[in-house]
Amino acid sequence: MTEELYRPGLEGVIAGETTLSSVEQVGLWYRGYSIEDLAESCTFGEVAHLLWYGELPDRKRLEDLRTKWDGYRPLRSELVDVLRRIPKDVPMMDVCRTGVSMSGHFAPSGDDEQAIRRRAIYLTAQVTGIIAARFRLLNGNDPIEPHGGLSHAAELLYQCHGKLPSDQAARTLDLTLILYAEHEFNASTFVARVCASTLSDITSCMVAAIGTLKGSLHGGANERALELIEKFSDAKEAEAWTLDAIKNKTKIMGFGHRVYKQGDHRAWILEKHMRKLATERGETTKVEIYDAIKNTMDREKKIFPNVDYPCGLTYWLMDLPPDMFTPLFVAARIVGWSAHMIEQHENNRIIRPCSRYTGPDKRSLVPLDKR
Amino acid sequence: MTEELYRPGLEGVIAGETTLSSVEQVGLWYRGYSIEDLAESCTFGEVAHLLWYGELPDRKRLEDLRTKWDGYRPLRSELVDVLRRIPKDVPMMDVCRTGVSMSGHFAPSGDDEQAIRRRAIYLTAQVTGIIAARFRLLNGNDPIEPHGGLSHAAELLYQCHGKLPSDQAARTLDLTLILYAEHEFNASTFVARVCASTLSDITSCMVAAIGTLKGSLHGGANERALELIEKFSDAKEAEAWTLDAIKNKTKIMGFGHRVYKQGDHRAWILEKHMRKLATERGETTKVEIYDAIKNTMDREKKIFPNVDYPCGLTYWLMDLPPDMFTPLFVAARIVGWSAHMIEQHENNRIIRPCSRYTGPDKRSLVPLDKR
Repeated sequence: MTEELYRPGLEGVIAGETTLSSVEQVGLWYRGYSIEDLAESCTFGEVAHLLWYGELPDRKRLEDLRTKWDGYRPLRSELVDVLRRIPKDVPMMDVCRTGVSMSGHFAPSGDDEQAIRRRAIYLTAQVTGIIAARFRLLNGNDPIEPHGGLSHAAELLYQCHGKLPSDQAARTLDLTLILYAEHEFNASTFVARVCASTLSDITSCMVAAIGTLKGSLHGGANERALELIEKFSDAKEAEAWTLDAIKNKTKIMGFGHRVYKQGDHRAWILEKHMRKLATERGETTKVEIYDAIKNTMDREKKIFPNVDYPCGLTYWLMDLPPDMFTPLFVAARIVGWSAHMIEQHENNRIIRPCSRYTGPDKRSLVPLDKR
Repeated sequence: MTEELYRPGLEGVIAGETTLSSVEQVGLWYRGYSIEDLAESCTFGEVAHLLWYGELPDRKRLEDLRTKWDGYRPLRSELVDVLRRIPKDVPMMDVCRTGVSMSGHFAPSGDDEQAIRRRAIYLTAQVTGIIAARFRLLNGNDPIEPHGGLSHAAELLYQCHGKLPSDQAARTLDLTLILYAEHEFNASTFVARVCASTLSDITSCMVAAIGTLKGSLHGGANERALELIEKFSDAKEAEAWTLDAIKNKTKIMGFGHRVYKQGDHRAWILEKHMRKLATERGETTKVEIYDAIKNTMDREKKIFPNVDYPCGLTYWLMDLPPDMFTPLFVAARIVGWSAHMIEQHENNRIIRPCSRYTGPDKRSLVPLDKR
């Protein structure tokens, strides 16, 4: 028997192996490709193929994935009924959880080697449809039929707004999906793997991961980064507040990273595109506020933005509401979660730690009548 | 920084502390009380109170819990609509997952110290209603209104069958709920704690745990134990098969345990009551088959039944179908899961292990047109 080790929170414990991504102080790689190269040259479809199948697709395989996605986009009327019945004040992450759980009842069946990847493709298509349908229902509009033939990101924006997005908007959303697609053993991915390790099904694993991403210590930072930017009416106000926050050691959302101490490459990549989108939209004030906070943090503390900082503003520039930001994280990360689930099943061993008992000593029971 | 340790599957890693239960080779204790004492003297309501609040209740507190449960039993029409819309061939564990996720949208709100326990009580009441409603819908019957004023177990049987259960049936179901309520850091409980550690909400934690319990390496053994018993028409046939299975090293469901090498106390406790129920029902053949397999395993291998072995037959004696056995495990364990979630939040630290990258070396990207 292996010696017991006390490691609360599992800090520094390597719980398993993965071929999907490596997170290093100097960057992020998906299956050996740097996130910069992927962001520069690929679409989300190519990255999803890379994570699910191990290699980037050629044109034929990419077209095949797009066709599968389009085939899986329409939401069942049973599912739309459920979305209609969820009260309007329920957070969209909770709607995602119920929606994906319901959608899973209609997932493509089959036990062949590729069946689980078909279900991953299905759930990825469905979750964007669920998010868009809920967005429309909240605005008093009926969900619309998918357009078809678009990129995954363009389809998502089309299903939300009912019109084709600008190229810059579609490209920028696509980029955020690439950047958020995978990040090794974070809490939600780890939950997907523990769930998978009992040989549970893909819907259960994805639903468990959605519920975990919802926690404020995990997802939600992009939403709070936008809230921060929205507090101020100009750059001067933002700088003054940031200086105060630094003095008072207030945590500033969207800055710093457990591993990327010299800055998060994903933030740099996204920021460039966010600026293009802002220019297209004629937005300047929010970008000035964005820069004021960022430059103050850099100058005073040498603490750099992580991917969540530019992401909040990016989504705002697409007319998407803050409650939708973590669900958009789901729309991306569901690819990583499902790829981890597939990887876990390929070489499975149940993930089952121990606990240390610190409760009352053994005691005798006093019956109800004498308590 | 802590030294990194490679522990795939987390075997022997103590991931945290708990005051809820201790699993030792010689037995099981909930907050210091032996499972024998709890099974002998308590109802499931008392055990739930013990796990949620730390102490066994007096009569007033127990009555208060029963009143809360009764108040939370009725299912919203929105939820029953969802249950109706799920195709009939969907496993009841998946229905539980979607049903609890949907039910959570209507959970009692509040941020005070007791709010989370109110939501735990609510979900415990709701999940039994969901299971019973689905059972009735599958049989072509409408769900019925709760009876009220009954024990949790009697209410569950009433809502399934539409008539009051015998005392022995109610008492035996109650006993299975006590025996299954808690078992420290198993995979589903661990998932509930990882989900909780991101500060996610109780519904998300319970839904994640349900999805994890569904896996065939975790829940489901009681179902397969009954399948085994149902293979045979008499004790002789069962004994012959068991001898063969031992010779061929076939795994026999419901036998053996990771920790309880000398036998699972829960199995002994439940078996006594299962026999009483069988006598009441006039069932002898299945009990003879049960004994034949058990005695052969004992005589030939000194391997003893775990709690799942008598449980399958117990539920069968209550006219409950095998697809409902793991959901009944949920109806019990949801108390342990929610108690763990509360405990995690009381002294939280995010649970986040690392992974070891074993994928391709860093490589340069060939653009789509050249692949």
